[in-house]
Amino acid sequence: MKLLRFGPAGAEKTGMLDADGNVRDLSAHVPDLSGAAVSIEALDALRAIDPATLPLVADPGRIGACLSSVPNFFCIGLNYAKHAAETGATPPSEPILFSKTTSCLSGPNDPVIIPRNSVKTDWEVELGVIIGRSALYVDEADALDYVAGYCTINDVSERAFQAEMGGQWIKGKSAPSFGPIGPWLVTADEVPDPQALDLRLSLNGKVVQDSNTDDMIFSVAQIVSYMSRFMQLQPGDIIATGTPSGVGLGMKPPLFLKPGDTMELSVQGLGSQRQVAVAAD
Amino acid sequence: MKLLRFGPAGAEKTGMLDADGNVRDLSAHVPDLSGAAVSIEALDALRAIDPATLPLVADPGRIGACLSSVPNFFCIGLNYAKHAAETGATPPSEPILFSKTTSCLSGPNDPVIIPRNSVKTDWEVELGVIIGRSALYVDEADALDYVAGYCTINDVSERAFQAEMGGQWIKGKSAPSFGPIGPWLVTADEVPDPQALDLRLSLNGKVVQDSNTDDMIFSVAQIVSYMSRFMQLQPGDIIATGTPSGVGLGMKPPLFLKPGDTMELSVQGLGSQRQVAVAAD
Repeated sequence: MKLLRFGPAGAEKTGMLDADGNVRDLSAHVPDLSGAAVSIEALDALRAIDPATLPLVADPGRIGACLSSVPNFFCIGLNYAKHAAETGATPPSEPILFSKTTSCLSGPNDPVIIPRNSVKTDWEVELGVIIGRSALYVDEADALDYVAGYCTINDVSERAFQAEMGGQWIKGKSAPSFGPIGPWLVTADEVPDPQALDLRLSLNGKVVQDSNTDDMIFSVAQIVSYMSRFMQLQPGDIIATGTPSGVGLGMKPPLFLKPGDTMELSVQGLGSQRQVAVAAD
Repeated sequence: MKLLRFGPAGAEKTGMLDADGNVRDLSAHVPDLSGAAVSIEALDALRAIDPATLPLVADPGRIGACLSSVPNFFCIGLNYAKHAAETGATPPSEPILFSKTTSCLSGPNDPVIIPRNSVKTDWEVELGVIIGRSALYVDEADALDYVAGYCTINDVSERAFQAEMGGQWIKGKSAPSFGPIGPWLVTADEVPDPQALDLRLSLNGKVVQDSNTDDMIFSVAQIVSYMSRFMQLQPGDIIATGTPSGVGLGMKPPLFLKPGDTMELSVQGLGSQRQVAVAAD
């Protein structure tokens, strides 16, 4: 299943794609997508619905974030060897974990707002993992059983806020609009191998990131199992699993977003995003 | 007002202390305490209620976390000069910000669970700040207008997970039970000066942390204003504002929790906590 939220920001309705890729109105069955509503049990119950029986939405308009809120927005850092190299870092020996503030969630095509006093706002296409079952002390062999689904993420990052102001990365990952997710929550059954997905990001029409999740240092299963040693993951938690090489910070000279720049990005099978950068008020 | 949640874990009811310190049942007015329910507007509306008119709860039993869930659980690191010194760190020139996973929330007297493979679980008494109004680009002079209230926090920390496994602190701050908050959410009107509160923590009856929030490097107002440059704070967000000296990591030799150890902690006017350490299953 491909689930989505559509409509004006703050007033989105839930939807499901039908076999022809049209949006069907799911709101009579699911008021919103977050937390328990995206647990594996809840998603399994939705499978009984034939999308063709749901009202067709002729013009869905704006697409919202595929989750209305998240208990936690986690990120894995430097999880592609080439990206670690371009930032000047040694590839990590175990997953680097940090978080984004949950208020940065944004629709896949909403503007990306360059914060006040920012000069280093950057892009990061990533595979997003949505947790579907409470997970604590989970073995790697079982870890994918705790995944509800996947989505495309742009882990927008302000490099000066991230690295030049005290050493913890959350400051540079959390501004409003820094977390476009979607367009769809694609349930795990449609992604038989999360380690075989192309990811790509273009800036103003030029491809700058072009890789595959087979280059990840730590797999989705390893990440979920590893994290569950330190914390209890919850249904609706989202994990951005790291970005491949090709971010602005890694260019010579570095290149950062300015108002009017356009990012187009996709993860294979999970749908595309398109954002225009704008300055904060 | 002093608000609380009481009853079995997962089935708490909301309560309010009356003039005699007795618990009154608030659940007919407020189903739970989190997010919009602790916005400044929502709390202002509660002031019209005379606690004496609410049902008396003769035996409230267990006290739960004073918030049922939080959008974000933020922490400020090394915010007392003496604590920075005991950990061997230079006092920061701007606030160090990181987060705890939101699933670590715990009742003030619930056991603290030492995680599997932990040998360095430590305590940290802290002043907790609960945000009451959406805050982005807020001046320091206005910052306290965005605070709904305060609470006592034990920012339980696993030092090896925090500092020896990849450099980002969230791994060592997030295990289940690592976030006891409460017993009460004390509304901001009852805390005229958050920079004049004694904090204290005893381990097995011996005082190990004994300080005052006047020793904070960055004040509550400075922290809220600073954070709002990087992210939009939301009603119900909680900020642990740093711990004074006297943690186990700073002792010579270092001392960490073992099953059976008892922590008793308080922040002046915000109530006391008492936790017994137990081993994870």
